[in-house]
Amino acid sequence: MDLWFTENHTKGLKFTIKVDRHLYSEKSYYQQIDIFDTTEFGRMLVLDGCVMITEKDEFMYHEMIVHVPMAVNPDIKRVLVIGGGDGGAVRELCRYPSIEHIDMVEIDEMVVNACRKYIPQTTCALDDPRLSIHYEDGLPFVRKTEDKYDLMIVDSTDPFGPGEGLFTREFYGNCYKALTDNGILVNQHESACYDEYAESMELTHKKLKRVFPVATVYTVQIPTYPSGIWYFGFASKGLHPLRDMQADRWNSLGFKTRYYNTDIHRASFALPNFAKELLKD
Amino acid sequence: MDLWFTENHTKGLKFTIKVDRHLYSEKSYYQQIDIFDTTEFGRMLVLDGCVMITEKDEFMYHEMIVHVPMAVNPDIKRVLVIGGGDGGAVRELCRYPSIEHIDMVEIDEMVVNACRKYIPQTTCALDDPRLSIHYEDGLPFVRKTEDKYDLMIVDSTDPFGPGEGLFTREFYGNCYKALTDNGILVNQHESACYDEYAESMELTHKKLKRVFPVATVYTVQIPTYPSGIWYFGFASKGLHPLRDMQADRWNSLGFKTRYYNTDIHRASFALPNFAKELLKD
Repeated sequence: MDLWFTENHTKGLKFTIKVDRHLYSEKSYYQQIDIFDTTEFGRMLVLDGCVMITEKDEFMYHEMIVHVPMAVNPDIKRVLVIGGGDGGAVRELCRYPSIEHIDMVEIDEMVVNACRKYIPQTTCALDDPRLSIHYEDGLPFVRKTEDKYDLMIVDSTDPFGPGEGLFTREFYGNCYKALTDNGILVNQHESACYDEYAESMELTHKKLKRVFPVATVYTVQIPTYPSGIWYFGFASKGLHPLRDMQADRWNSLGFKTRYYNTDIHRASFALPNFAKELLKD
Repeated sequence: MDLWFTENHTKGLKFTIKVDRHLYSEKSYYQQIDIFDTTEFGRMLVLDGCVMITEKDEFMYHEMIVHVPMAVNPDIKRVLVIGGGDGGAVRELCRYPSIEHIDMVEIDEMVVNACRKYIPQTTCALDDPRLSIHYEDGLPFVRKTEDKYDLMIVDSTDPFGPGEGLFTREFYGNCYKALTDNGILVNQHESACYDEYAESMELTHKKLKRVFPVATVYTVQIPTYPSGIWYFGFASKGLHPLRDMQADRWNSLGFKTRYYNTDIHRASFALPNFAKELLKD
């Protein structure tokens, strides 16, 4: 059988992946969930037709969303993950013995259950005793929280569908309140290359800048995402992602990583001119 | 009409671009040449079924293959471009008043003529009086040259078909001879993500390292190339791409660029661990 999965990256661009087996296909209250075995990327999670993670390249996304803030503040003790139902961000966080507690707020329990069954590569730390999983909407969860987290990771879908509220100024204001004085917010921030995503990126950045004294973006290569490069936002109450990075301390942890290193950390905040242009006031 | 062009990036991955018009399709002695108008990327040059350049993203490739070596040695006067029939590298080189002469050795005159007719965005400097175009094979051209060029840019197709000889150790040895004492060689170097390209990248790097005292690689985002990230090789007789970079001098030129800046220059030499692993001895 010759089976191919296609995601339309833009109106004029299709990204088509050879499928060996369609393992799972269910509609939850929130979204369509599919899991495939693919020839090029191994197991792959698809939500509402968009590739979320694949076994082959998820390390790029998850290492960069976690180790960048952790290298800036290795004293982070309390972490909130919004979304991240595949478990990849939690897996990377759980490598730090210094982290005391992680709350993961994922709206869709079915995503977590499907990933637990089919993608153990990312869910392997979801039974860590420091983790509490809350199956609820991240927005009210954050609204009722104050001065509690040293790090918030918004590992969401795109700004339409269930993830929409996680790209609003009200939400970012509540994130600010929920963070401690040294708090850092990292979020997936869309991308600069194609108009469809660049507009969201520009808007998201503007909203974050109005709320946080430090608000910048950094890049990561993700071959299965549109244009191959994705942006994360780094916002904080004061810590700067480069000036405050504790490279020696992070390196002394001795973690084996496949993407992240402290040179890539620095490099990921350098932007090409077309992206700078997009983000300037 | 619903017309789509597909390139197989790997055996399990297709990249499919909406075509508004198929403008040109001819077979030269060396290769199949096609030019399309596309919805997402504007005009697009395809050789033997592989996307070479598009109007939308060629600036990333051409700025990075030219301005990186030029910022390391702004005194470059004589340049050899091997391949580069689309004219994009020559266009960027011709912005430097300090460059005295450029030889461009392109094996396939039909590529140049087709690009002149359909892609003026990249061919616009091909009539610069400092440029001599030689329609011949780059290998013998370089073999007979000694101590002549401050910079060689190998802007070739992939290491199969007409570009194959440009990825051999013999060729790199001849490049070394053809370069002046401060000479720099920059070449397209395949990519690290998919096995099909990673093997070429590894081999190319090993060959360059045996010939040049300085041999390293740097990255550029190119959304139409496999995995969205491409690698260039930077090899020299002594100049180091970071320690010898003359950032202030390059910035004082006042060039308007859309991708390159001196921060991106530095950042582009930082590699993720999986790529470092591939390139280590």
